[in-house]
Amino acid sequence: MDTLPQVTLPQDGAPQSSLSGGFALAIDAMGGDHAPESILDGIEIAAERHPKARLLLVGDEVRLGALLSRRSRAARICAIRHAPDAIPGDMKPTAALRVRHSSMRVAIDAVAAGEAAGVVSAGNTGALLALGKVVLKTLPEIDRPALAALGPSARGDVVLLDLGANVACDARNLVEFAIMGDSFARAVLGLTDPSIGLLNVGSEELKGDDRVRQAAEMLRESVLGANFRGFVEGHDITAGTVDIIVTDGFTGNVALKTGEGAFKLFGSLLKQVFTSSLTAKLGYLLARPALERLREFMDPRRYNGAVLVGLNGVVVKSHGGTDAQGFAHAVDTAMDMVTHRFNERIRESAATLPPRGRVAAAEPGVNAR
Amino acid sequence: MDTLPQVTLPQDGAPQSSLSGGFALAIDAMGGDHAPESILDGIEIAAERHPKARLLLVGDEVRLGALLSRRSRAARICAIRHAPDAIPGDMKPTAALRVRHSSMRVAIDAVAAGEAAGVVSAGNTGALLALGKVVLKTLPEIDRPALAALGPSARGDVVLLDLGANVACDARNLVEFAIMGDSFARAVLGLTDPSIGLLNVGSEELKGDDRVRQAAEMLRESVLGANFRGFVEGHDITAGTVDIIVTDGFTGNVALKTGEGAFKLFGSLLKQVFTSSLTAKLGYLLARPALERLREFMDPRRYNGAVLVGLNGVVVKSHGGTDAQGFAHAVDTAMDMVTHRFNERIRESAATLPPRGRVAAAEPGVNAR
Repeated sequence: MDTLPQVTLPQDGAPQSSLSGGFALAIDAMGGDHAPESILDGIEIAAERHPKARLLLVGDEVRLGALLSRRSRAARICAIRHAPDAIPGDMKPTAALRVRHSSMRVAIDAVAAGEAAGVVSAGNTGALLALGKVVLKTLPEIDRPALAALGPSARGDVVLLDLGANVACDARNLVEFAIMGDSFARAVLGLTDPSIGLLNVGSEELKGDDRVRQAAEMLRESVLGANFRGFVEGHDITAGTVDIIVTDGFTGNVALKTGEGAFKLFGSLLKQVFTSSLTAKLGYLLARPALERLREFMDPRRYNGAVLVGLNGVVVKSHGGTDAQGFAHAVDTAMDMVTHRFNERIRESAATLPPRGRVAAAEPGVNAR
Repeated sequence: MDTLPQVTLPQDGAPQSSLSGGFALAIDAMGGDHAPESILDGIEIAAERHPKARLLLVGDEVRLGALLSRRSRAARICAIRHAPDAIPGDMKPTAALRVRHSSMRVAIDAVAAGEAAGVVSAGNTGALLALGKVVLKTLPEIDRPALAALGPSARGDVVLLDLGANVACDARNLVEFAIMGDSFARAVLGLTDPSIGLLNVGSEELKGDDRVRQAAEMLRESVLGANFRGFVEGHDITAGTVDIIVTDGFTGNVALKTGEGAFKLFGSLLKQVFTSSLTAKLGYLLARPALERLREFMDPRRYNGAVLVGLNGVVVKSHGGTDAQGFAHAVDTAMDMVTHRFNERIRESAATLPPRGRVAAAEPGVNAR
């Protein structure tokens, strides 16, 4: 089935996981604005960082074979599996579910079959969410998966979730998100005791709705209780007050995009500043090395790779328009999750939660949002 | 009752409104971190811009009289009304409601009595929201007041509401917020046809919950239909895609504070850039005039003055820690609202909405959030 490229796999290309297929990750090589070229370029970078990983490259085998023959590092760690179709960026998730032999579907199928521990795709987000949920299913004790990502703060990177996988969610969902965020922060940020905050409004009068208050209570009593710092506000995200910020998918999506928009506005204004006069341009040249470091710090590629957490398998969504560096970063994130017991930890923590039925019965109406 | 300061009111100090008391605004002179001094300094600046307005200064008459005697422009437009108490910044709204003779309460009472068209306070936000609602009551056809404010965008200032007055709200509330935002944009930004967007999540799969979808439908059919641009996302706030962004108080509060936090992080990183080396410092000096313009553009004082809209009277909340310039800006905002038919326009638009009962009956469960 899998077409190995015309290079010999090295002896040290042993799988890091104990999966039957032996692949760390399946890669949807046909998803994204510049696929498959930029995907392969990203794999070439990733291969340098993960020379012992084995990746399953899914897509048009003729194109992929040709591209791989010109990328020696990638070729050393990749096998190709043919998938005749690709899901267009504008296809509805319901339609995408019906495309049986898309590169995205075949890659996810490889995870479901236990051949690969995770999947990385830069393709259609809605399709990836839908296929991930339908094919991989949620972990035991996890009701709904969530989208998580990293963002910059004054005190290091922070984890924010849910970013839009769930518009409506209840208190118990928020607690599950906290558990998944905790595992994500440990696996990807390498934190040993990540602190957790629940996003809320700041007015003294209005400390949120029943849902967040109930979630806070459940978190305090949970296995995460010692690391739970209570409510945080919007400005705490970039302040880095806590390592993990938990919220529903509606608020999280708006917060993520509002923050991105604010950075973008500031960046474009700064650009105007430095082109406003000859002396300002000279000033830019003098401050350039430090400004370049600022640019690197804020580089969206550094934060590329939103993760669909809570499924039986690692699912990483790369930005569709990212370049090779960005895609390589998404692969890094997925590799961190695969090798650092990401899902095992979620299973362990979630198993300590009280049964869902009891909570729901005791608190009618918490499914408000 | 009102102690006029020891200066003669000029003949041109005629009220701009037809109120019985003849005051454009009542000022809570004792609210805020640096009250009453910074408040009086702010009034001194505002008096230059509004020489014909009459303001009712509420607070400790001895202290206010002394301060006013040293501020000639402010003295010309102000009368003093004594209030023995001040509401502390950390007092609970429920407790604040019981303080009968606080400067905030007496100022709001003056609006309720028709002596002043609006009130400006830099005091306790929760207390102002509670007192505003209880004493002034909502306008006819308006179910709940909302907090609105301006923010910077790539295409001019935008109006964002609700910023936290309502944690839970239904589709009809969102439509009312749009009506109030429309009037605010016309009165304060001077726009003749402000465009409106409803904040939503961006995933293709998930176009929000029933509530936002229903609100969008109602808006399309409303008197604002021609200016309604449909759903917008978090990044549209700073992109300036529309003039008015409507959302619930939970999401709005988080979006506002997330955006502020992002600007703050960027600003502090920029400061690090310009102090990182001698050449970077020199670069700063060269780019300084343009950087100062950037600083002015982003100056929070320029956006000082959140407005509690939907009440029988104009209520403007200045930031508690702002300086004289910031307070003067809050007074400007209130004056714009008083003089530009702010509440009249809301009444006119809201009167065209279908009766609330019908909508609620037809759509059970929309009060979700």
